[in-house]
Amino acid sequence: MSRLVIWTYDWVPEGPRGFVRDLRLRWACEEAGLDYAVRTVPLDPKTADHFAHQPFGQVPFLNDGDLELFESGAGLLHLARKSEKLMPGDPAGEAETLQWTVAALNSIEMVSVPWWFLGLRGAEDNPLTGWLQSRLDHIEGVLKEREWLAAGRFTVADLLMADVLRVGKIRSFGDRPASEAYVARITERPAFKKAHADQMAHFAAADTARA
Amino acid sequence: MSRLVIWTYDWVPEGPRGFVRDLRLRWACEEAGLDYAVRTVPLDPKTADHFAHQPFGQVPFLNDGDLELFESGAGLLHLARKSEKLMPGDPAGEAETLQWTVAALNSIEMVSVPWWFLGLRGAEDNPLTGWLQSRLDHIEGVLKEREWLAAGRFTVADLLMADVLRVGKIRSFGDRPASEAYVARITERPAFKKAHADQMAHFAAADTARA
Repeated sequence: MSRLVIWTYDWVPEGPRGFVRDLRLRWACEEAGLDYAVRTVPLDPKTADHFAHQPFGQVPFLNDGDLELFESGAGLLHLARKSEKLMPGDPAGEAETLQWTVAALNSIEMVSVPWWFLGLRGAEDNPLTGWLQSRLDHIEGVLKEREWLAAGRFTVADLLMADVLRVGKIRSFGDRPASEAYVARITERPAFKKAHADQMAHFAAADTARA
Repeated sequence: MSRLVIWTYDWVPEGPRGFVRDLRLRWACEEAGLDYAVRTVPLDPKTADHFAHQPFGQVPFLNDGDLELFESGAGLLHLARKSEKLMPGDPAGEAETLQWTVAALNSIEMVSVPWWFLGLRGAEDNPLTGWLQSRLDHIEGVLKEREWLAAGRFTVADLLMADVLRVGKIRSFGDRPASEAYVARITERPAFKKAHADQMAHFAAADTARA
């Protein structure tokens, strides 16, 4: 069995397919050439065993031999320490990668996910729109000046930021050509395409098994 | 000059005093016995130089010799690698600390900060209340079972989670005795008290300089 095991749901409806966060860990493993297996927990009903591994009842969580981590951001930083393809080994490159990984989690996703959540409820005048626009404008300013967030090359920070920004409604949020080009460039990477196709196939197979 | 420099605002109004996030980095340095200096950027107007160091125009950011990091969560993880007092050096302890640090940023604060922000706007029926309650309930369940989040001892994950949960309106959010005891226990630590008092004194001195 692979040392690395990525845990995801056994099945999800069509809406979230292609966006369930096991994709982030699959993608990182594909970029780094790390061997991994995928295993599942039931979406419905969620089990006590699932909560024992992930106290919020979410996915993914990651096994690395005897180690286990939940939180996709933590899994990415853990995997990044295994491969220079995900994070440079020099202190400056590592610090830059760390700061931009946390920025994706805590400066962008902290606004974009609640904004998306409120949008689902059909609020006409989303009260988080101004805040989200401001954050996206700052990112656009950064991406106008350079191709990658950290260390002058692709890192796990780009993987995560592109995954945060590629969510349909965020991605189409106004005219931000540098951000659009960034997401397009990064989601053209073979490792993303492989991870995305594998997740889609995983859930499609679950449909077949249910039929 | 100290190798570590924590950057914060020159002044803030009374409301946020005691909660500006330079406190997280001061606190971590106090826990670890790391020497540091504090320097400032203007709150109003924010300068181009500030945005060059922190693209969202926030604080803190951290210098460590020639390295520089923004995002308080990134600064904490960076400092944690310097001291076993903040994070155990064994792989399992490090993985647990990392996962709970990211959980504070991306599973709790991702809901609590937007909830607080919507509350500021005076919304009677805060649309994020149910989501926040659910996340706080999960944390309460974890803290009922153990004293510390990671590795059976205080780590930087507790520092961050307690800082997220101690925000007045979050802290008083329902009857969650384990969470309340956790925050009380952690904010009794001398390193927290020192960091908090130093931040309060920093902004009080700025009042005097302005008068």
